[in-house]
Amino acid sequence: MDLTTVLGVIAGLAMVLGAIASGEGGLFFLNIPSAMIVLGGTLSATLINFRMKDLLSVFRVLRKVFTTTELSSNDTISRLVDLADRARREGILSLEKELDKVEDDFLLRGLQYAVDGAEPETIRAILESDLISLEERHKIGQGIFTSMAFFAPAFGMIGTLIGLIQMLRTLQEPSKIGFGMATALITTFYGALLAYLFFQPIAGKLAARSKEERLQKELILEGILAIQSGDNPRIVREKLLTFVAPGSRETIQLRKKR
Amino acid sequence: MDLTTVLGVIAGLAMVLGAIASGEGGLFFLNIPSAMIVLGGTLSATLINFRMKDLLSVFRVLRKVFTTTELSSNDTISRLVDLADRARREGILSLEKELDKVEDDFLLRGLQYAVDGAEPETIRAILESDLISLEERHKIGQGIFTSMAFFAPAFGMIGTLIGLIQMLRTLQEPSKIGFGMATALITTFYGALLAYLFFQPIAGKLAARSKEERLQKELILEGILAIQSGDNPRIVREKLLTFVAPGSRETIQLRKKR
Amino acid sequence: MDLTTVLGVIAGLAMVLGAIASGEGGLFFLNIPSAMIVLGGTLSATLINFRMKDLLSVFRVLRKVFTTTELSSNDTISRLVDLADRARREGILSLEKELDKVEDDFLLRGLQYAVDGAEPETIRAILESDLISLEERHKIGQGIFTSMAFFAPAFGMIGTLIGLIQMLRTLQEPSKIGFGMATALITTFYGALLAYLFFQPIAGKLAARSKEERLQKELILEGILAIQSGDNPRIVREKLLTFVAPGSRETIQLRKKR
Amino acid sequence: MDLTTVLGVIAGLAMVLGAIASGEGGLFFLNIPSAMIVLGGTLSATLINFRMKDLLSVFRVLRKVFTTTELSSNDTISRLVDLADRARREGILSLEKELDKVEDDFLLRGLQYAVDGAEPETIRAILESDLISLEERHKIGQGIFTSMAFFAPAFGMIGTLIGLIQMLRTLQEPSKIGFGMATALITTFYGALLAYLFFQPIAGKLAARSKEERLQKELILEGILAIQSGDNPRIVREKLLTFVAPGSRETIQLRKKR
Amino acid sequence: MDLTTVLGVIAGLAMVLGAIASGEGGLFFLNIPSAMIVLGGTLSATLINFRMKDLLSVFRVLRKVFTTTELSSNDTISRLVDLADRARREGILSLEKELDKVEDDFLLRGLQYAVDGAEPETIRAILESDLISLEERHKIGQGIFTSMAFFAPAFGMIGTLIGLIQMLRTLQEPSKIGFGMATALITTFYGALLAYLFFQPIAGKLAARSKEERLQKELILEGILAIQSGDNPRIVREKLLTFVAPGSRETIQLRKKR
Repeated sequence: MDLTTVLGVIAGLAMVLGAIASGEGGLFFLNIPSAMIVLGGTLSATLINFRMKDLLSVFRVLRKVFTTTELSSNDTISRLVDLADRARREGILSLEKELDKVEDDFLLRGLQYAVDGAEPETIRAILESDLISLEERHKIGQGIFTSMAFFAPAFGMIGTLIGLIQMLRTLQEPSKIGFGMATALITTFYGALLAYLFFQPIAGKLAARSKEERLQKELILEGILAIQSGDNPRIVREKLLTFVAPGSRETIQLRKKR
Repeated sequence: MDLTTVLGVIAGLAMVLGAIASGEGGLFFLNIPSAMIVLGGTLSATLINFRMKDLLSVFRVLRKVFTTTELSSNDTISRLVDLADRARREGILSLEKELDKVEDDFLLRGLQYAVDGAEPETIRAILESDLISLEERHKIGQGIFTSMAFFAPAFGMIGTLIGLIQMLRTLQEPSKIGFGMATALITTFYGALLAYLFFQPIAGKLAARSKEERLQKELILEGILAIQSGDNPRIVREKLLTFVAPGSRETIQLRKKR
Repeated sequence: MDLTTVLGVIAGLAMVLGAIASGEGGLFFLNIPSAMIVLGGTLSATLINFRMKDLLSVFRVLRKVFTTTELSSNDTISRLVDLADRARREGILSLEKELDKVEDDFLLRGLQYAVDGAEPETIRAILESDLISLEERHKIGQGIFTSMAFFAPAFGMIGTLIGLIQMLRTLQEPSKIGFGMATALITTFYGALLAYLFFQPIAGKLAARSKEERLQKELILEGILAIQSGDNPRIVREKLLTFVAPGSRETIQLRKKR
Repeated sequence: MDLTTVLGVIAGLAMVLGAIASGEGGLFFLNIPSAMIVLGGTLSATLINFRMKDLLSVFRVLRKVFTTTELSSNDTISRLVDLADRARREGILSLEKELDKVEDDFLLRGLQYAVDGAEPETIRAILESDLISLEERHKIGQGIFTSMAFFAPAFGMIGTLIGLIQMLRTLQEPSKIGFGMATALITTFYGALLAYLFFQPIAGKLAARSKEERLQKELILEGILAIQSGDNPRIVREKLLTFVAPGSRETIQLRKKR
Repeated sequence: MDLTTVLGVIAGLAMVLGAIASGEGGLFFLNIPSAMIVLGGTLSATLINFRMKDLLSVFRVLRKVFTTTELSSNDTISRLVDLADRARREGILSLEKELDKVEDDFLLRGLQYAVDGAEPETIRAILESDLISLEERHKIGQGIFTSMAFFAPAFGMIGTLIGLIQMLRTLQEPSKIGFGMATALITTFYGALLAYLFFQPIAGKLAARSKEERLQKELILEGILAIQSGDNPRIVREKLLTFVAPGSRETIQLRKKR
């Protein structure tokens, strides 16, 4: 479970509901027609904006935002350095036996190519093309949430305009202007809340996860190429460690270093 | 028919018209002079902003948004792998007989060049130049809708300003302020609706379709070059499959793989 | 004459003036002091923002927006293919006689270099440097109009603020609030109209014209280099045709192709 | 201590508190529920938007904004030129003795590689990869503050909407509208103050510090490579001095130059 | 003196002051506390946002905006062509005597390197690094004014919010609402005026000057390299002239050309 996402959603809702509950008539904020125009309008615009295929992926993407798969660069580096060490001592073909233990699909494919004797350029070309496709798909996921964060306040405003026009048109007694305006503003409130508490931060989290996954895969790619070229394991580790923040580099490894 | 576009337009209009119908006096929202200034102003600004030639293409572009031509990357890959296989076994000239069966113009031209014995660099140069021109033209189409999404709220505001100035100038009895303001706000409502339910999402869909078409053509380009260079069909498939999301890669092909 | 620019300006003004005329007191919208602060402020900020030399070019640039010089890529391609054909048959020096007939200065210079025996890299370097300078100058022209589209609503708002402050300060009888507010809003209206009906679309048209001119010059550059290298005229045409949209490629030429 | 940050925060708060104190009822501006919705909402959205790991780094980052570590490029250049001089005269291995005196970790690692006899390409690859990782991490720090500068006014508006809706709903006596509106506006005020006096300028300072650190490290990288390649110390200094503004280049060094 | 900057400032102030003077009570617009919160807040945020070192350069930068140093590309080109001619006839060492007459520091350094026999790659590397540093420093200067143009309206709004809250809180007699609102709006007016008449256009002028200076230095760099490589002076002139707009190329030189 992604703690920050879950905590953020709970805390954010608590703040807003608390602010509503602290006044009277909190149920006034629960307005089904207002919700329909904001949510419905946002989803309609999003439907037009994207392809069916991309929209269907949104649920898988959403799950990703709420579940954590902390990727440990340090573990990956140890793994790659071990493989580099073995390949150097026993030859690259010796890695064939290791393939069954590899769980990461990207690493598995890369090692398979290396064991099969593919050219380094071919391996790099295929894996980089994979990386680019991955990033493109991630961007579509982020794009859907960014679009919803753009459309939600827009339809909030459209709902408020409809409410204002309806109220102002027949305005006779100024005493009613307050109630009508409050009702009209609820759609603006819904639109802002959806955009700024959900859609925009979710797009942000997706971007952070995407960058993390990309970094991890780049690390694996560099590692595979280093293994194949028979680089000194010490150099391999040095190279791969640059992908990790200095503070997070495991000290055990650094002690082994010299 | 592009289901998401059609569904989105219908659902969006239903939401907005429902919200209007739920109040009284729905016909008040039908205001020809307001529509004229918003639509007319938007179209005028767009006329100035673009070249005649580009504007005329907008209808062809719009049709694209409502009709689907789902491009199947898997089919294209099978096709290219078959061609690579044949070219490898029987020589590249053997593809000449296949040319009649090729429907895709881009693939046809590329294969023709390969059969004619053009240099790989020449083929890449010509086809990439084609790709870039294609993308440029697509960007103009998207640009027209993005511009209209920018101008529509602007002319909505201009219309509201005109209405407000006309009303405020002669404001004598405050009781009339409501009706005048409601009328003035209708242009803002029109501008927002046009921009956020139509123009902006249509530009988004065009961008998605453009990316899809570009990807498809890049895949074909890589395939043609691989065919020409006599690559191993297995490697060709591996390379081309990186253009497809792992989940969508056809399992049959992957099973054949090893 | 650029029909779309002229039509857009006329239609846009007709819409806005029609909306004003449809109400009473249309002359109220004609307010010299309001025009002065919006136009004067916009021009002042633009004066500070640009160099004298760049500002003086704005009139030449404006003329460009209202006059058409439809560039026919197809004609240019025929011309270049003919030249390539001749150069191939009779040698590149034979083009010297053709130079007098060449009107386009860019083509003339390029051919002159080729006839003079300059290195292809030198020709490309000089002509590309020309292209980049051209684009830089075009961007300044667009930048002036984009800046004015930014400053006009800003000074519209400043004018309205001045009007509001003057009115509110001495507000005694609420009955006058309407008239004062209407007057104050006129500068916002002027600013929006200038920005969204004139400055912004004109910047857009300039960008479109610039891209067209650049494309045309890139086409000529590729053509000259192909001529010099003695490429097969058929290949030259194929390469150059990629600059043209498939639908606009002249069928006569395509028929000649094989 | 970073004087500009501290001075800016103090002066900014003094201006705002002074403006509040100059009117009556300054304590009215101290509103805990308003602070909770703005700060709480901003933090909630930020929690969702980022990864735990990144958020934890924010305190370390904040400290950086308030403490100065003025990096002296001139000192670094002298150091590097001295090392280059020594390496040229006594051989690169002679630098091993100097390593203990080197405090900067980046310089230390680079020199260690050079002394170990690593290839220049390897050194450049590892150190540049380090630089890129560093910049990525800095961008996350800036991104957190930029996001908070985006979310704070948004939750300020959400708070004001809640307050307005609560007040307008039961609006009976117009005399109370003032007090309710004042209360509702306090969240907008909080959001704007947080965003424009704290979050946005802090993101700006982080960007400036990041650029400074990157420049310093690039300078060291170029220096190490120049040392390794045995460049003439005079040329080394010339190259490295281009990283420094002409006005800040130390005259002593320039005098030594010829 | 930079005429456009000075004229723009005078004309802009005249427009705004004229509009204020045309109404009654112009002195009402002179409000010291309002000026303090807008200017003070803007400067405080700017202090936090930048480094002391960068902020101190702002005065030197400001002087640049008001003084003209029209750079004549044509003169520079003549100069470089003469030097190329001489270097070609008498050898590059003959330029040593010319060095004393060279005033431009950038040209002087480049020629000195060439005379000293530095490699072309070294000269290009050092001078380009110089160019990039120069541009970075220019961007900081522009960034300070762009930031102030961003912060000024923000603190104008903050000041207006404070004024509105103070006024609305104790609102008893509606007759006073006008005066209070007028006072509150003055900070918004100040913020807008500072941003749109001063800070934003000044950042624009700095960008234009920076581009001009960069172009001039690129021209010199190309010229020096051409001189060193012993290029034909005619070709040198052709190459350098591409940096100049066709309309501004001096006809005398073009006549000499053939």
